[in-house]
Amino acid sequence: MPASLPAFSRGEFDRRLAKVRAAMEAQGIDLLFVEDPSNMAWLTGYDGWSFYVHQGVLAFHDEDPIWWGRMQDANGAVRTVWMEDDRVAWYPDHYVQSTLCHPMELLAAMIRDRRYGDRRIGLELENYYFSAKAFLTLQRELPDAILVDATALVNWQRTVKSDEEIAYMRKAARISEKIIDGIVERIEPGARKAELVGDIYRDAVRGVDDDWGDYPAIVPLLPSGSDAAAPHLTWDGRIFERDMATFFEIAGCYRRYHAPFCRTVFLGSPPQYLLDAEAALVEGLEAGLEAAVAGNTAADVARALSLPLERAGIERTARAGYPIGLSYPPDWGERTISIREGDETALEPGMTFHFMPGLWMTDWGLEITESILIRETGPAECLCSRPRKLFVKD
Amino acid sequence: MPASLPAFSRGEFDRRLAKVRAAMEAQGIDLLFVEDPSNMAWLTGYDGWSFYVHQGVLAFHDEDPIWWGRMQDANGAVRTVWMEDDRVAWYPDHYVQSTLCHPMELLAAMIRDRRYGDRRIGLELENYYFSAKAFLTLQRELPDAILVDATALVNWQRTVKSDEEIAYMRKAARISEKIIDGIVERIEPGARKAELVGDIYRDAVRGVDDDWGDYPAIVPLLPSGSDAAAPHLTWDGRIFERDMATFFEIAGCYRRYHAPFCRTVFLGSPPQYLLDAEAALVEGLEAGLEAAVAGNTAADVARALSLPLERAGIERTARAGYPIGLSYPPDWGERTISIREGDETALEPGMTFHFMPGLWMTDWGLEITESILIRETGPAECLCSRPRKLFVKD
Repeated sequence: MPASLPAFSRGEFDRRLAKVRAAMEAQGIDLLFVEDPSNMAWLTGYDGWSFYVHQGVLAFHDEDPIWWGRMQDANGAVRTVWMEDDRVAWYPDHYVQSTLCHPMELLAAMIRDRRYGDRRIGLELENYYFSAKAFLTLQRELPDAILVDATALVNWQRTVKSDEEIAYMRKAARISEKIIDGIVERIEPGARKAELVGDIYRDAVRGVDDDWGDYPAIVPLLPSGSDAAAPHLTWDGRIFERDMATFFEIAGCYRRYHAPFCRTVFLGSPPQYLLDAEAALVEGLEAGLEAAVAGNTAADVARALSLPLERAGIERTARAGYPIGLSYPPDWGERTISIREGDETALEPGMTFHFMPGLWMTDWGLEITESILIRETGPAECLCSRPRKLFVKD
Repeated sequence: MPASLPAFSRGEFDRRLAKVRAAMEAQGIDLLFVEDPSNMAWLTGYDGWSFYVHQGVLAFHDEDPIWWGRMQDANGAVRTVWMEDDRVAWYPDHYVQSTLCHPMELLAAMIRDRRYGDRRIGLELENYYFSAKAFLTLQRELPDAILVDATALVNWQRTVKSDEEIAYMRKAARISEKIIDGIVERIEPGARKAELVGDIYRDAVRGVDDDWGDYPAIVPLLPSGSDAAAPHLTWDGRIFERDMATFFEIAGCYRRYHAPFCRTVFLGSPPQYLLDAEAALVEGLEAGLEAAVAGNTAADVARALSLPLERAGIERTARAGYPIGLSYPPDWGERTISIREGDETALEPGMTFHFMPGLWMTDWGLEITESILIRETGPAECLCSRPRKLFVKD
């Protein structure tokens, strides 16, 4: 019995592999090793919380990929990947977190056995789980290979989503809406933050109708008052207080596909500076959506956003968004394009972004964001459909 | 207003820093850079979901540590670390996930400015988040420095817990018990997995009485039937079926301190092979607890466990446990000692482990585990108190 029905058609996986092989060809890479769990899943369907040990996927030009990892996780691989069972390879358990030996010694031996020891091998040098030691070990064990930086090679192939992927992101967006609805309904002065977070998780995982929720790659973020100046604080046991704003940064997740969505709630009567910021931010978002047209660039969106903010005297230097889709912790961004000045990547139909112009000032914060899809023509489509505003509960 | 009350006394942080400085001295390290979020938090109190971008803590022999990270996260740092605000340093946002520049260029410049450019600098070469590119960038930018592998230097100082830490782990254990109680009460044939996971999260985050729950470093794992052969599968939308075992691997978490706890539930009448495995596993656990005495080694515990399993014909090659405490995703283990053959580390009072002899066979699995504390004398103390057995609901 497989762990779950295949999440994607075989044609979808063929499409992905073909794109990756073309990118390998363009960069003169004979063999690609990806350790990024999102890239592993996107290429093979592998799904498991095993990325705390070394594992990866080897992509070839002329044979199916190989999933490689810890022995006990091979059982999860044969249950989730589209390749035949003989394309699952493993290393024994005493290599796990050992100071005496390193799993990359065995990966290098496998690469040599397959006669790639003197070829051009692509590695994800800038990635969460491919450690410096992993690189140095491969370098030592593959002295005749040419090790090429293939950081984000696969990530770039993921930027334009297929119809199958977009369908999943729409399901994720329904879950995001449910989470935000639950927050607005439940939050009130005196309510405990941890209680509300418990309900957020429950909504997120129960999902909508038959569409169960997966774990998002980032936990709910919900700082209040002056703590909202800090975008990445999590929760604690305190209560929500009157006359205070709290932003909620959450994402529904369906089969690892995300639709991040942020809204801010004020309990009481918001001060004028917050209302002014809300007006400028909503105007900036709307201008950005208008600019998020196929053919325009990521920087065009950033510029459209910034004009209303500047008019309101709000200086903002952080990037205003990033591509989204399939992800594992610690980030639901794809780490390719950034919506910011200087990024002249052209937008293409099927690209998806979290348009995320969070305001984190010295002692307050405001988040109103949209997950968006670039269309064939016209402004971007918002995946979630909820009022684009500061929610006020008096 | 700080994000939360300081989690630890100043004396506790002084104790930690002194231990780290002694280890630096022993390894001839003048300056230590730690990127591991658990090590960062343990040394400074920093707490935020920002480890998806480069950040770290610099530890010196003769001045307070410096928290270093992304500009927008400096707001979170000044709210959570014990050091003065002038010990918080940041890099601008256009360095984030850029292909044109790397944050480590700025870290190197700061190190040179502080006259450590020609000293011995310790780096965590085998760690999540400290990428190969980060290392190569520091190597390029600090040509006169001697870069030393300081992997797990801080982790080793964390193995023996203080009373303050043990108090937190006991609170986490209460949450673990609550989660397992909720599972056993709610699971039944026909119940949807995703619904139960929603309740697991709710229990975990609401916590027990005033002790709110933090997010555990690993999501709930709960494969059923033959999928339980794979230890790291997460959940999906299917239902629990009659005559099937499901193991639950969860952890209560209090202020980032974990008490992992696993139990297995069978719906119906368990087959004899599972009852036999249960008996052998419980006998092995009890023998292991008896062997988990200060002065014995990690390998002694592994050997005590393995005898009853071997008598029952169960071959088990995976390690049987690891140290636990403060952790961030993707792992709640501390990555130092392993309870396995060959690890001759002596057990000391105050060490805490997840004694985790999971059985993952070809087409079934069984997990019954304990979070344990090594005492001054006598067998280890189990932090959770629930029957050590296969739970059966008929």
